[in-house]
Parts: sequence; C-alpha cells; structure tokens
Amino acid sequence: MFTYDFTDIKKPLYQHLYDCIKSDILASVLKSGEKLPSKRALAENLKLSVVTVENAYTQLADEGYIYSEPKKGFYVAEIIRPEISTSEERAASGATTTAGQGAAAQNSASSQNASGLFNFSSNVSPEETFPFSIWARLMRESITKRKEDALLNVTCSGLKELRCAIAGHLSSFRGMTVNPEQIIVGAGTEYLYGLLIQLLGRDKIFCLENPGYRKIANVYESNGVKFVFCNLDEKGIKVDEISRTGADIIHTSPTHHFPTGITMSADRRYELLRWAGQKDGRFIIEDDYDSEFRLNGRPIPSLQSLDNSGRVIYMNTFSKSLAHTIRISYMVLPPALAKEFYERLSFYTCTVSNFEQYTLARFISEGYFEKHINRMRLFYGRKRKTVLDLIAKVFNPSDYRIIENDSGLHFILYLNTKKTDDEFVADLKKHDIQITPLVSFYSERDGLENSIYEHKFIVNYSNIDIFLLEKKLQIVKKVLSY
Amino acid sequence: MFTYDFTDIKKPLYQHLYDCIKSDILASVLKSGEKLPSKRALAENLKLSVVTVENAYTQLADEGYIYSEPKKGFYVAEIIRPEISTSEERAASGATTTAGQGAAAQNSASSQNASGLFNFSSNVSPEETFPFSIWARLMRESITKRKEDALLNVTCSGLKELRCAIAGHLSSFRGMTVNPEQIIVGAGTEYLYGLLIQLLGRDKIFCLENPGYRKIANVYESNGVKFVFCNLDEKGIKVDEISRTGADIIHTSPTHHFPTGITMSADRRYELLRWAGQKDGRFIIEDDYDSEFRLNGRPIPSLQSLDNSGRVIYMNTFSKSLAHTIRISYMVLPPALAKEFYERLSFYTCTVSNFEQYTLARFISEGYFEKHINRMRLFYGRKRKTVLDLIAKVFNPSDYRIIENDSGLHFILYLNTKKTDDEFVADLKKHDIQITPLVSFYSERDGLENSIYEHKFIVNYSNIDIFLLEKKLQIVKKVLSY
Repeated sequence: MFTYDFTDIKKPLYQHLYDCIKSDILASVLKSGEKLPSKRALAENLKLSVVTVENAYTQLADEGYIYSEPKKGFYVAEIIRPEISTSEERAASGATTTAGQGAAAQNSASSQNASGLFNFSSNVSPEETFPFSIWARLMRESITKRKEDALLNVTCSGLKELRCAIAGHLSSFRGMTVNPEQIIVGAGTEYLYGLLIQLLGRDKIFCLENPGYRKIANVYESNGVKFVFCNLDEKGIKVDEISRTGADIIHTSPTHHFPTGITMSADRRYELLRWAGQKDGRFIIEDDYDSEFRLNGRPIPSLQSLDNSGRVIYMNTFSKSLAHTIRISYMVLPPALAKEFYERLSFYTCTVSNFEQYTLARFISEGYFEKHINRMRLFYGRKRKTVLDLIAKVFNPSDYRIIENDSGLHFILYLNTKKTDDEFVADLKKHDIQITPLVSFYSERDGLENSIYEHKFIVNYSNIDIFLLEKKLQIVKKVLSY
Repeated sequence: MFTYDFTDIKKPLYQHLYDCIKSDILASVLKSGEKLPSKRALAENLKLSVVTVENAYTQLADEGYIYSEPKKGFYVAEIIRPEISTSEERAASGATTTAGQGAAAQNSASSQNASGLFNFSSNVSPEETFPFSIWARLMRESITKRKEDALLNVTCSGLKELRCAIAGHLSSFRGMTVNPEQIIVGAGTEYLYGLLIQLLGRDKIFCLENPGYRKIANVYESNGVKFVFCNLDEKGIKVDEISRTGADIIHTSPTHHFPTGITMSADRRYELLRWAGQKDGRFIIEDDYDSEFRLNGRPIPSLQSLDNSGRVIYMNTFSKSLAHTIRISYMVLPPALAKEFYERLSFYTCTVSNFEQYTLARFISEGYFEKHINRMRLFYGRKRKTVLDLIAKVFNPSDYRIIENDSGLHFILYLNTKKTDDEFVADLKKHDIQITPLVSFYSERDGLENSIYEHKFIVNYSNIDIFLLEKKLQIVKKVLSY
C-alpha cells in the first residue's frame, strides 16, 4: 500500500498516483472508512511534490472515491465499484432517455471506457457511489427480520411505510404537502404512464414537449392513445399552442426540461395551471425526474405545490436518483384522482416486491437517501466545473457557447461550425467520438427556425472520463473547422 | 426446551405438544437444522405415549415446521415464520384471485386466524416455508458481489441469467424446449397482460373462461379492450363457442382451471390448437399458474409443448410458486411474436430490479427452487389428505361430493342443501365462517343449468387451520340442514 512505482511513467504524475490509489480502492486493498496518509506524508514517502498528491486527492474526492473530513484528512469513501468494462448489455437495453432519430446512436455506447468510443452524451449515470453495503444490509434485514410483514399483501398503491417515507422526503426536500394516500408506487415511470392512461381515459389527448423524451411518445403510441407535440420557448412549453391542439393532458418537466435544460418561468407555470383549471378533465403530468440534482441556488418549487385545483400529477423515480436497477417510481395524484384510482384500479397488485419497498422505505426514513443525494450533488457539481473549465481552456470563446441553468446532469453545447449536424457527428464518429445533436430529440420541426436547434449538442457530464476529456475536446475542436 | 407442562390441559395432548414445539420453533428456541429428540425419548421424558409424540411430530412435519431424514429422525425445518396475526393489509389488497360478485367477501379475511373469521376459500398461500434465509443470502451476494453486473442495464425482456434459468426449469420440469430469447420477464402477470395487449393489438377480441379469474377481465376492461366469455364443459373451454364469439385470443388454464379444477382433455387441447391455427392472428394465452402443485400422477404437458404453429403464449408466475411478494412473472412467446416484441416494445425497461432477478436466477439454477417446490408439494399433499379425511368423517356420504383432480391448492365441495347459495353463505357468516360459492366466479350464466354451479363451494385448503377444521365442519353440517 502506498508503495507505488513512479519510474518510467508517461502520464502526469498526479494521474498515475490517482490511478494507483483508485485501483487499490477498487481492489479493496484500501478499505472504506480507512484514513489516507496526509498529503505531506505521502509526498515525502513517494518523493513527489505536495501539489501532485493534492491534485490526485482532489480528483479522487471529486469522483467520490475518497472524502475529506475538515481538519482530519481524507478517508476512503464507503461505497465504490469498478468502472463498467463491458457495454454490450448496457447498449442493448438503452438508457433512460432515447431520442427519436438519435436513439440507436445514443444507445450504442453508454460508457466512455466501454467500447473505445468516447461518448459526450451518455445518460447512464455513474453508479460508483451507489451505497451497496447499506442497501445490502437493509435488504437483508427486510428479508429476515420483517418476514411476516413482507409477506402480507400490500395495497395496490404500495407499502404504507414507503409511501409515508416518500411523503416525508417530498415535504423536507420539495416543500410539498402530500398525504401518503395520494402516492402510488410502481415499477418504473413507464408502468405508471400505463396506469395513468387507464385512469385518465383513453379518449384523452396527451400533449408532449417538443423536443423531449422520445420514450414517453413510445408508450402512448404503443397504447394506441392520441398524442400531440407542443413547442417550447425560453420560458417552457407554450400554453397557447396547447390550447390550439385540443389536448387534455400535458406532460412536462418544469424543473429541468430534457434536453434543453429550460426551467419553466414562474409566469408560465401559473399560465399552465390556469389552462388546466379552465376545463374539467385537464391534468398536468409533472415529471420531476432530476430535481434532486439541482446544483446551485434555491430549489424551484414544483408545479404540484403551486396547484390549488387538483390538476397536477407529480411523478418522480428512484431509478435516476439512486440507481437505474432500482425499479421504483411513484406518482402523487390529486386527492379526487387518488380516490378514483382506489375505486377503479385497486384490483392491480403493486408491481414492486415488498422486500425492496421495505428497503427503500428505511433507506429514506433513516436518512441514507438524503446523504446519498448530497454526496452525488457534490460529486456532480465538481465534475461539471471540471468539464466546463476544460471546454473553456480548449475552445476559442467564439467557437462555442454553453447553454445551461445549473441543474441536472447535462447541458447543451453550442458549437460554431459550418458543417451540418449530421456531417459533424459523422466526422467525430471517425475519431471514435460520439455526441448527440439536440435536433434528434425533436419530433416535429415545422415552423421552427434552424437556429433553435442547429449546432447544439447534449453533453451529459455525469459519466464523462475526465482524464480523456481534454484530448477528446482537442479532436472536437479540430473537426469543428477542417 | 422440551420441558413442557401438561397439567390442566383441556385440548388433546398431542395438540398441546404440537403447540409447544411450534411455538419454540417460531421463537427460535429451536433453531433450524436442530435435531429433535426421538419420539421414544421425548415420550419418556414428558411421560406421554409414543403415539402422542408421533401425532404431534406428524402434524409439525405436515405443516413444514420439521422434516424427517430417513433413519435419522426429525429436524427443525430451515425456514419458518409465525402465522400472520393481523389481516388488515392483507384484506385491503386482496389476494391473487378476485371473483366478480364474491370479490369483496373473499378479500375481507384471507387467513383463518386473522379476524376470528374461518375462511374455507382464502387463496392466500401460507408462506411459512418460504426460504427466507437462502433468499436473504442470495440477495446479499447479488448486491455486494455482482455490483457491476447488477447495475448494467438489462434488455427489456429481463436478465439473461434469469431467462436461461427459467428455460432450464421449463425444460426439466415441464418438458418444454424454450429459447431464453422467447422469455419476457415482468413484474407480475397483470403487467404482462398489459404488454400483450400492446403486442397483439387493441383491435383483437379476447376470450376469457366462464367461470374464471375476474382479475383478467378487470385488466382488459380497464385497458378498453373488447373481451367475451366462453363456457366450459367437463373437457375444458368449449371451442365451438369461441368460434361463435369471433374472438382472436383465448385465455385459458388447461392444466388446472380456476375455479372448477378442470384439466383440459387431450382432444380438446388439439381442437383448441387447430382453432388457433385456422386464422392468422389467433393466439392462445396459456396461464400455467399452479402447475408446480400438481400433486399426483404424471404432470400434464403444457399446450405450449404441443404447439407446432407458434400460437401459444405460455405464462407463469413466481408469485404463486414462491411467495406473492416476489413480483416476478414471465411469458414465453412464440418465436415470431418474440421477434415482434423486440422490434416494437424493446423501448420498455424491464420492471423487475436486477438485484431480484439475479437472486431468483441463482435460486433456480442452484436447485433451491426445485427443492422448495418439492417441499411444498409434500406439505400440500398431506394437508389436502387431512382436510378430505375430516370432511369424510364429519359429513354423511349423501351430504357432499368432492370435485377435484389431484391438482393445485383447492377443490370444489358440493353440499346437498335446500338453501340457496346466498342463504347458505349468509347463515355460515353468522357463525363467523366464510366460504365462496362457485357461482361468484361466473360472469355470465345465461343458458347454463343451475346444477352446473349451484351448491358448489371453493375449498382452498392451503391456508386452512387444521385444528379448527373439524369444529367448523360440524357447524357447516348443522347449517346445511336446519
């Protein structure tokens, strides 16, 4: 331990040190909770400068491998896992987001290290910080200690303990006052969309944001339900367009729209709520998918918390905030709709196993979820800064523009190029670099000016390999102009 | 331990001994794997007759609390849990089966001991034998040792390991040759029905068995899909009736129809397959929900294994065979339909968490599932015999008739009474006894003779309290005639 060899190292010394320590952590040579030597001691020991050690430690901390305790030093973080090294199954399944035309391309390599392809737009979150050992312990206790309870049938809406824990989380984290009876737990948001179609009625017209998640459209299409698209302006979805389409139900992500990153303005929120209140049977489905990852500033209140007339259906998922293998999502129904749900759809059995529901309930109510979110925010915040700094370092100011709003795990990178987006993507592909253009998330472009979507690309920094980034950005810069 | 007090015991001695030992097992005073004293030794020690100890041991073994090793003696079984003592959540959710008119009544008390109500028709399986400790161990290993794998996305159809394990199980247990690619894993059969509607098309007419599970009709109704009912005769669903309804898709449980218990005859099976082959787009959904619990005789081949023309969709669930909290079901699609599934519906994420999929995959492939099934069959077989013996002991031969076919966890009890079924059920209710009449599972009765359904009742013996049974049967006998 800490007897690393620095002879004949081609890469920067701090990077080699980072690699060595990281590898020891992954191999459990360094165990979670273990204190690392002070920077000075390690520098002396390895005959390196303190700055080198400091750079390595900072990098490790940024990526969640170690953490610092003020005035005490650095410790190995609790939960660590190796980088994923095969991408086949990942790629096969597709990530949370799939875009229309770009879907195939997006899914073909989700992790930078996986297939040699460097992907700027992978939306698979790194799960190195997933709290495996805590989760395993809570799960074991759920199975062995709560046998009787776990085998009881639960109501169609999910385990009461879990619904109470979620209500508590929404109260402290989002300032939402929610009765646990309004909460419906299900195995993923796609499943919940299916329930909503049955609850709201197949005769309704659903309205989706353009651009937006293609998967939502897939669900409606596959269920044979009518849906239309509405464009966004800088304030969010255009309410006057909704009115023109005759839609009854709106899907929207006001906190952080995907992929544009737009946060719906306050006046637009009230306009949307007014629209919903103007006619019976109108509802807003608020997908709050990454609100946990708002990195700066005060959190933005949910539409649900502004709604006085019972028109907002709030949705969120633990697949995004915890790990995508955790198939637990939930929706908060307005009281009248919740009543209807229990009357008409309570014959359904909850799709999440009781064991997992108990585990998650304790994970939330015992504070682990909050801790996890805080750690992830720190991790993502530092990573974002590093990515933005490197972009600023590599490109000339006139070459690019960052479009973002301090939220979520991605931003939009505008690049000043004469090439079409297709040409640019194809040229980068030759260098094993993948990037998804914004345009691929548009279902309709009629009447839209090219400047709205052209030359804009999704950078999902959550899973970007920082060490390769500068080199890859240099290639992007070259491809931009030649 | 084994220093039980037998003074002033009002109940039979063997029952008191049974109660004492069972209580020690539940309280972990007796640990799993522990050897019990020989019958002779215990009899001497407690000053009881050997027969008394033998009766107690037999009862404990029948109910799965202990097991015998030939020539070695009796051991405490591996997994035990206390009887469920509150029924509120159970009752709230309803069991796997809910019948039309009888649904509310059926769900109001699922366990005999729960609310003071003795329920002859509860279909909540006792889960005392669920292998908690093995499951907990496999789960822990899935979470901690297979981190990287568990966090990979899986294909929409489920984890490959699990699909391979299921294919292996189907091969050895049902003689079915199935490619893992044909298997689609989902969180419960209800969810899979929803996928099938999307896959087969909303324009199709679905045909359900009359009588049958009301829940299937609920799913179709809620999804706005057309469905019709077809009657059964003693050979199973009447194929000539199907043809008259113009239905495209048949739902059937040929191995063991619920609730009649009918096993579809071989000629009817071929007739049904012929019907399906006569027109494109016709399919048979074979729900094999309790085939694992065929107790006597050779297993009956599935329709799927007789099908040469790719018209059978096979479905099964681990919620029934393992524990209803395990929300894992699967379907086996004919190859052409599987191809279509991957083409059209692969945007869906599998609804079961990877951790649970890994756990179940190992549970099957390492032989635990087979062992569990065998233990449960033994348990149910003995329990059924006890129930039938007691019925024969209490009733006059002219008072009753048992309609069963050595399969599954329930049978039909015909009772010779002048009362209407409603009167009879109401009179029993006054004695805190609940029984569900067959008629409540009929959605239509036009043109059916009364004798087909009248005076027939569901006895689901899996969860019946043997010690209370004789007393309760005496009450049933009294109510029958006065």
